[in-house]
Amino acid sequence: MSNAVIAIHGGAGAISRTSLSPEREKEYVEALAFIVETGQHMLEQGASALDVVTEAVRLLEECPLFNAGIGAVFTADETHELDACVMDGYSLHAGAVAGVKHLRNPVLAARLVLEQSPHVLLMGEGAERFAADRGMARVNNDLFSTPERLAQLRQAQAAGETQLDHSAAPLDEQTKMGTVGAVARDLAGNLAAATSTGGMTNKLPGRVGDSPLPGAGCYANNASVAVSCTGTGEVFMRTLAAYDISALMEYSDLSLHDACERVVMEKLPTLGGSGGLIAVDREGNVALPFNSEGMYRAYAYAGDTSSVGIYR
Amino acid sequence: MSNAVIAIHGGAGAISRTSLSPEREKEYVEALAFIVETGQHMLEQGASALDVVTEAVRLLEECPLFNAGIGAVFTADETHELDACVMDGYSLHAGAVAGVKHLRNPVLAARLVLEQSPHVLLMGEGAERFAADRGMARVNNDLFSTPERLAQLRQAQAAGETQLDHSAAPLDEQTKMGTVGAVARDLAGNLAAATSTGGMTNKLPGRVGDSPLPGAGCYANNASVAVSCTGTGEVFMRTLAAYDISALMEYSDLSLHDACERVVMEKLPTLGGSGGLIAVDREGNVALPFNSEGMYRAYAYAGDTSSVGIYR
Repeated sequence: MSNAVIAIHGGAGAISRTSLSPEREKEYVEALAFIVETGQHMLEQGASALDVVTEAVRLLEECPLFNAGIGAVFTADETHELDACVMDGYSLHAGAVAGVKHLRNPVLAARLVLEQSPHVLLMGEGAERFAADRGMARVNNDLFSTPERLAQLRQAQAAGETQLDHSAAPLDEQTKMGTVGAVARDLAGNLAAATSTGGMTNKLPGRVGDSPLPGAGCYANNASVAVSCTGTGEVFMRTLAAYDISALMEYSDLSLHDACERVVMEKLPTLGGSGGLIAVDREGNVALPFNSEGMYRAYAYAGDTSSVGIYR
Repeated sequence: MSNAVIAIHGGAGAISRTSLSPEREKEYVEALAFIVETGQHMLEQGASALDVVTEAVRLLEECPLFNAGIGAVFTADETHELDACVMDGYSLHAGAVAGVKHLRNPVLAARLVLEQSPHVLLMGEGAERFAADRGMARVNNDLFSTPERLAQLRQAQAAGETQLDHSAAPLDEQTKMGTVGAVARDLAGNLAAATSTGGMTNKLPGRVGDSPLPGAGCYANNASVAVSCTGTGEVFMRTLAAYDISALMEYSDLSLHDACERVVMEKLPTLGGSGGLIAVDREGNVALPFNSEGMYRAYAYAGDTSSVGIYR
């Protein structure tokens, strides 16, 4: 066992044992195990943390079970608007895209922004043009659609859970949030993080959450920690949840565990935020805290068996 | 004199005494003095910090001298894409818009997002639809155009300073950056911050900088500080510059002055970041640090004379 490690998440929310059938649970566990072990094998073969988190998130985007890429939730317009971010803890470079509709793997577009532009965040059609200019294929928006997500949209619409209300309704994402992410520490000691999402079911078109924003839903810094978040995005944005873990470790000398407790169990709930995050620090410690009923999660150290969890 | 105070900025960059004619300099000084004194009078009459920073930034957007609203720079497509953010230090609520083209005052749209939605950030057409649904007028994009900015675009294009290059050219914003912002502490002790920008001349359409991102280019927290940034946006995003000032004060117990030194004079330059920020802490201390040649700036305490600066 080394301290090269990968952790992944597939979203946090109201996941209870009664709501998930044994068959469905098995699908989630198998998908999480396959993806985390793919990352683990890459790490064992010397891959960089940046490559490992990019590939893990690409696989999570490809899996229709999770709310990112294929299987993304629907907006109120019955479209999909996807966000992703990737950050390199060695260089502190980040790349992100927001509100893209025609790129199969938003995390690969984010990686392109990181590597082939002087920018951090490109949005909408500008992001798609940038990716197309570099050879990335354009796909139809309905590639991301699944019958399960359409049913969730209909349910949200029927329940009036619309973000188009003129009233500033509090965000209750317990039943409809989801994001995917990965963090890793490679054999060389470099950290990286990646996050990708379809956002919230029935969301207002144009709404951008924490996922594509460095410091909010995604952050990596070799000096401290790599973090990927999932939950009520707006609260993670207002608290800079991912960077806050790093700041508490760097400036207050908190351990990874104590920084996670402070942010996930104290600061986020104070503002009504629910969800969780995955983190790996520079020493290879892993934390997977959440304040919701469950979080799809897994981690694996190089040379060790993987661990998968769903419930509290 | 009380410790109710407003500070504003109109961008940082390569502003040298030789490049600015006396007439032009007078225009800047008069505009900054008028706007900061308008905010000062509002504070003296008991206005909230949130209202004061919103109005100050609205006036900066209306002034064609500054790169926000009217007078915004051109993208590579010869359009204007505007970003703005406003944050309330009392509630830690924030509202922001990115990439809007048809809203005269992006800061007022950001304020609408803060007050009439459960969201923090809306982008592009979704943001415009949101604003239109709430009665905000739609304007033509060329409302923001000025001959000076078009000349700057032509100059940038001729010099090949294009962000469309396939090479990841380093950002050299010395001559073409600009943003506006305001921070305030009101008589009740509440803090607020607002930032607005047209981005960079000849920018890639879809590029989003630090200005509309809470924690990057704009942050306010009654427990610590209100901050508005201007400079090479990507570096401010990667360092979470605005929130970092707050974290250094809260977690490392640094003074406002020392936190500003650390971020503006050490952390930003290490990553190639140039520019500055304005900040007011919970006790009403003001800081206006910058590491570039100049920054258009002003501040005024309630009941005192205002102070305006341009050069170092």
